[in-house]
Amino acid sequence: MNLRGAMMTDKMEVTPWTVSQELKDTDYDRIADEFGAKRLNDEMLERIRGFTGDLHPFLKYGIFFAHRDLDLILDDYGNGKRFYLYTGRGPSGKMHLGHLLPFLFTKWLQDKFNVDLIIQITDDEKYLFRDIDQEDISRYTDENILDILSLGFNPDRTHVLVDSQHSGLLYNNAIKVARYITSSSAKAVFGFTDSDNIGKFFFTSIQAVPAFLLSELKGEDIRCLIPYAIDQDPHFKLARDVIPKLGYYKPSSIISKFIPSLKGSGKMSSSDQNSGIYLDDDPKSVRKKLMKYAFSGGRDTAEEQRKYGANPDIDFAFNVYRLLEENYGKVQKIHEEYRSGNMLSGEMKSLAADKINEFLAVLRTNKERVSKDVSSYMFDPARFE
Amino acid sequence: MNLRGAMMTDKMEVTPWTVSQELKDTDYDRIADEFGAKRLNDEMLERIRGFTGDLHPFLKYGIFFAHRDLDLILDDYGNGKRFYLYTGRGPSGKMHLGHLLPFLFTKWLQDKFNVDLIIQITDDEKYLFRDIDQEDISRYTDENILDILSLGFNPDRTHVLVDSQHSGLLYNNAIKVARYITSSSAKAVFGFTDSDNIGKFFFTSIQAVPAFLLSELKGEDIRCLIPYAIDQDPHFKLARDVIPKLGYYKPSSIISKFIPSLKGSGKMSSSDQNSGIYLDDDPKSVRKKLMKYAFSGGRDTAEEQRKYGANPDIDFAFNVYRLLEENYGKVQKIHEEYRSGNMLSGEMKSLAADKINEFLAVLRTNKERVSKDVSSYMFDPARFE
Repeated sequence: MNLRGAMMTDKMEVTPWTVSQELKDTDYDRIADEFGAKRLNDEMLERIRGFTGDLHPFLKYGIFFAHRDLDLILDDYGNGKRFYLYTGRGPSGKMHLGHLLPFLFTKWLQDKFNVDLIIQITDDEKYLFRDIDQEDISRYTDENILDILSLGFNPDRTHVLVDSQHSGLLYNNAIKVARYITSSSAKAVFGFTDSDNIGKFFFTSIQAVPAFLLSELKGEDIRCLIPYAIDQDPHFKLARDVIPKLGYYKPSSIISKFIPSLKGSGKMSSSDQNSGIYLDDDPKSVRKKLMKYAFSGGRDTAEEQRKYGANPDIDFAFNVYRLLEENYGKVQKIHEEYRSGNMLSGEMKSLAADKINEFLAVLRTNKERVSKDVSSYMFDPARFE
Repeated sequence: MNLRGAMMTDKMEVTPWTVSQELKDTDYDRIADEFGAKRLNDEMLERIRGFTGDLHPFLKYGIFFAHRDLDLILDDYGNGKRFYLYTGRGPSGKMHLGHLLPFLFTKWLQDKFNVDLIIQITDDEKYLFRDIDQEDISRYTDENILDILSLGFNPDRTHVLVDSQHSGLLYNNAIKVARYITSSSAKAVFGFTDSDNIGKFFFTSIQAVPAFLLSELKGEDIRCLIPYAIDQDPHFKLARDVIPKLGYYKPSSIISKFIPSLKGSGKMSSSDQNSGIYLDDDPKSVRKKLMKYAFSGGRDTAEEQRKYGANPDIDFAFNVYRLLEENYGKVQKIHEEYRSGNMLSGEMKSLAADKINEFLAVLRTNKERVSKDVSSYMFDPARFE
């Protein structure tokens, strides 16, 4: 353990702004343990299934793999008490599939439990942490919101909170959080140094606000469940320390691994157009990107593939396919075909391309509809007072 | 010089939250020099008089004693370009005379130059820096605003900006400032350590905003003049570094010493009811406080006083008297009478009590009028767009 404490292991650094290397499954488990999160074990998955009837592919395949206090959320729900969901997005670029897919899981949770969802768009974060100007951030903010909403969230229960547009509400509550976080904690948790700007230090208190905002507005304590990728854990570890001091429940969380990227590194990059599949990629481009760039778990030649089979678990095409294919039997069959060598890498890619294009076509239709009505999704405090 | 840099000398610490000892005139000069501010010399005073026709007692008696770039403000004004004024108050308690008097000088500047004035009420600062709850701060905010406005500011050109009520506008602009201030600068300038909360680190960027806000809203660069007591200099030294990077003029400043306190220490305390004279003190209490507590420059006995005379310069009663008495001839006469021993300490105190009670009576009348119309003084960005 280094001075930075529990958030970073000897060899790797995992913060919202730095992931030092590609992570293997054993790394995820180790990080979750070091961060103090619990694994999503079979017992917990069965408890979820008891409420939802089935398990979303993100749970089935262990993409969401850890949690904090999810049991308390389910206890409450079992006793007839609703919780709410909170997740977010930093609008520093166009969204590709790797950014969008986790929102699918959040939508599934919303649908199954019929609860409110806050989607925070942290445009202030991107301004403070990146060399990017406000016009670009503003453009990405608008685009990203549309992309996210095109997944078909419940219009009555989905509330988009854009930091720059709700800054008054956020700042007034953020100072309550900030009062309890020392510079030293921020350094320990995020790896900041004295060369970092004071806005970065403060920012985590803005990201903490949605985790108690509905309780604050409603004047009654209501639990919050936050689905997020493991790199965001430092924020919510701090938030869990502070929020009870304000008189509210610790937020619960359900934590994911990173979605495999097209080219196979730990976290999809937004800067390289070919590193991901975008919502506006036409079917031909999707197919081409998969064929040309998708990291494959197959063998180098068709001959070897027939002989030894593929490793589907590290294969981009297979991974995306199984997240989008709801029929579990079908997924199992493809896994076996590909693993055994009956199916070639190109065939796997082609199948995934079809699946992705089908998914994108639905999104494009939804997007057109949603774009006429974005304002009705914007967070309105009056709805909770 | 210690590690904290130019803001603190070897022996003393002067930050918005700590003034380590009572300051003498030579200390003020030394601090101004170390802070890099210029003295308000006779030449500059004459330039001011050229525009205003006379000099306010705060200038005449050297209470405002230093400046930064005041000459640029006067150059612009001479060329027909208006500037605006910005000053503020942290609402952590009731306001006494020592808090109110500097606002008199700001009002004089506003009247003479006929310019807009922003009065920032930093209720967020008090919450972040003191162990005080939001209800108390909110009550002091309302009271303090009324007290300040009772001085009779121009209703058309006076704009009260309450941080918690204008937090959206402030935060969105503050992050532009925060981006350029490192934790290390904040530590050097304010003496923060890693044990301080992250809200304290961020706060200076909120206090910087009004220094460019009118330029930002109007979309044209307009100079800002900030009257403040020397302990606020660290904020504006940082602000002067950053604001040009946002494309606006460095704010100018005119800097005061601390107003002498009733009991004679460097900065009047708000916690001790007898340490200051409050707006709601009735004439009898004012007289009693002066007689009982006012730090005197007179001798211990009437006999000694007759023989050796007083030191009016360190005498609370004389100091307040001369700040409230507009007739300079009269002030000079009293100074001579008291200094020479013709006038006793009790007589000086009685004269000051009359002057203060006269002043408070006017304030009370104004307060009643203003209290019916406070909302019209609130900062409204639409007026500048």
